[in-house]
Amino acid sequence: MVQFLLKKGAGEISNLTVALEQLRDRVRSCRRCFNLAEDELCWVCSSAKRNHQLLCVLEEPSDLLAIERAGLFTGVYHVLGGRLSPIDGIGPSDLHIAALESRLRSGTIQELIIATNPTVEGEVTGQYLAALATPLVDRITRLAYGLPMGGELEYLDESTLYQALAGRRDFNGSAASQLPR
Amino acid sequence: MVQFLLKKGAGEISNLTVALEQLRDRVRSCRRCFNLAEDELCWVCSSAKRNHQLLCVLEEPSDLLAIERAGLFTGVYHVLGGRLSPIDGIGPSDLHIAALESRLRSGTIQELIIATNPTVEGEVTGQYLAALATPLVDRITRLAYGLPMGGELEYLDESTLYQALAGRRDFNGSAASQLPR
Repeated sequence: MVQFLLKKGAGEISNLTVALEQLRDRVRSCRRCFNLAEDELCWVCSSAKRNHQLLCVLEEPSDLLAIERAGLFTGVYHVLGGRLSPIDGIGPSDLHIAALESRLRSGTIQELIIATNPTVEGEVTGQYLAALATPLVDRITRLAYGLPMGGELEYLDESTLYQALAGRRDFNGSAASQLPR
Repeated sequence: MVQFLLKKGAGEISNLTVALEQLRDRVRSCRRCFNLAEDELCWVCSSAKRNHQLLCVLEEPSDLLAIERAGLFTGVYHVLGGRLSPIDGIGPSDLHIAALESRLRSGTIQELIIATNPTVEGEVTGQYLAALATPLVDRITRLAYGLPMGGELEYLDESTLYQALAGRRDFNGSAASQLPR
């Protein structure tokens, strides 16, 4: 990186320092969902084109960007800022769970999609959130577990194959149509 | 491998040659499902403990072993011996599809689980089989697509995330209980 910058010369380095200062000064947490934002609200929360009744909860802003890349989701998000991890001493009060609860209590959310990572800690976090949300939201869903696209059965681990079998679907059940746009 | 055999000595090499001859002479295709077998029928087809009304169709015997390792499936199999691939000149008559059709026509199969690989060719093969089986079987399912266990959303490709979102499930819908034992 240093070699690259030395080649580019002084102008590029100034641009970079300005950008870094702006990163420090301008980027903050969205007041509502804790996504990265430049204003009070992030670009998702402030958009009138998003479905504000469909809420997807996930661990980090990088997960949010991954879901956005998939291009299907048109609801809004809530970023926890991590996952429950007793070993690392991370409990519910260390995550943005209280803020999630008050969003759910407001009564505007019709479906909560739990999109914590498919790891042990992500799964435990999801279970915790589902228990918390059950009295507050009509519908609680989670991302499907199963075969990743482009893989080969032969090289998949047993627990993924177990999930793919246990969660098998009717062949012509067009799952995509279930998602409100 | 040669180094290993030289270390082991003559006895081991004789054992190996005998095993290889037995492989050549004894291993054949199961008459019913085209799995590897030592007799007319393979160990799955000849088992009275398996549910012979639940049929899982897949590409290769190695896929069958992968599903067996997952430990959930108690039905029987049909091994196609490959996948449809127009580019490689592999059409329906090159696979064990006619044999599958006559198994389905016998009327004993209640559910056909399509477990071709989650690749483009596997998907096309699955579509072909589903069209073929629709008039012959009551229920046609396929393995779930979605998040592989242990992954991180951030590193998953867009089409897998799309499938995981589109196929999302009610949180407490215990998918595993849907599989007949």
